[in-house]
Amino acid sequence: MISNAIIRRLPRYRRYLGQLQRQGVQKISSNELSALIGFTASQIRQDFNTFDNFGQQGYGYSVDYLYSEINKILGLDREYKTVLVGVGNMGQAITNYNYYYKVGFNIIGLFDSNPKLIGNTINDVVIKDVSELEDFVKENGIDVGIICVGRNNAQEVADMLVNAGVSGIWNFAPIDLEVPDTVALESVHLSDSLHTLAFKIKTNEESKK
Amino acid sequence: MISNAIIRRLPRYRRYLGQLQRQGVQKISSNELSALIGFTASQIRQDFNTFDNFGQQGYGYSVDYLYSEINKILGLDREYKTVLVGVGNMGQAITNYNYYYKVGFNIIGLFDSNPKLIGNTINDVVIKDVSELEDFVKENGIDVGIICVGRNNAQEVADMLVNAGVSGIWNFAPIDLEVPDTVALESVHLSDSLHTLAFKIKTNEESKK
Repeated sequence: MISNAIIRRLPRYRRYLGQLQRQGVQKISSNELSALIGFTASQIRQDFNTFDNFGQQGYGYSVDYLYSEINKILGLDREYKTVLVGVGNMGQAITNYNYYYKVGFNIIGLFDSNPKLIGNTINDVVIKDVSELEDFVKENGIDVGIICVGRNNAQEVADMLVNAGVSGIWNFAPIDLEVPDTVALESVHLSDSLHTLAFKIKTNEESKK
Repeated sequence: MISNAIIRRLPRYRRYLGQLQRQGVQKISSNELSALIGFTASQIRQDFNTFDNFGQQGYGYSVDYLYSEINKILGLDREYKTVLVGVGNMGQAITNYNYYYKVGFNIIGLFDSNPKLIGNTINDVVIKDVSELEDFVKENGIDVGIICVGRNNAQEVADMLVNAGVSGIWNFAPIDLEVPDTVALESVHLSDSLHTLAFKIKTNEESKK
């Protein structure tokens, strides 16, 4: 059983290992990784020891091997068929982000309720009316739905995605959605992040006084 | 001294209190808030007791008062003069997000290095050449810089913002920036969120086997 704390660290390990790969680095020690990532070397060794066969630490870890093992653990060694609902500014940004960065979540359906958007295409995907969402998800065996609609429609869209059988939802609406335990949910709350920034600024300013 | 754990909960309290305000709710008990937010009632009472004068809990908390106090604690009772660097898809989405949601971070300068974008306007703000960034930040007393450039240019832009004197950076580039302790930094790592989603899906699927 892998603890939640480790899971939260894995994407970060993956990000740095990807960077090392692009730089052509093949072996890395826990001390070197520590200097890069900021976790302690003993934390890193402890994390990697949780998994099997993470390379002999005395000689350094294999960057390629670590990267591909972390991908497997995270479930990133496969593609996720994905739809996105709400093709406003944020929806378009996320659509292009997924397309250009090839993140393994291929958006093959785009949905909106705005007649001005329906029929347009982004990266060769046609924007459809949201009334077609459930049938599309069922017929195409969609794994993941991305929600970029506003606060007032987000739960309704989530219900449609859940009813149609998605395994996961990536939510950008500023509300906490209710979904069954069997559906994975991950939310990006931009306002929470911005408010944390405001608080940090305020704290810094007060410590200067 | 307010603990980090509480600080992470405050934006969430704020979000729900804002929702209650829009619904016209004036008083709320810790039990009602608990049912809405998902924190335990005793956690909520404990959090609010950390601050002064959060309303007599026996008669319920005043929604307006809680909301405005949390705003003050978070440093959201003021405006932050903001610039955004990197007006690609994500940059445009964030520009419009800040504009439409009036989040208190007014973007008064947009910067990019792409000649096709320079000179265009978004919400009446002209996109300038990034070479003008530092002077603009100094001359206008900019508080916050939002970084929406790619991985390879993000640290350079952060250095420019820091040199020019910003108090905070909101970073969307997929790297961990290095900034002095005196500059507040908050990053939105979309890929980390997506990888966490993949892992949750995988865990759910394995538990079904």
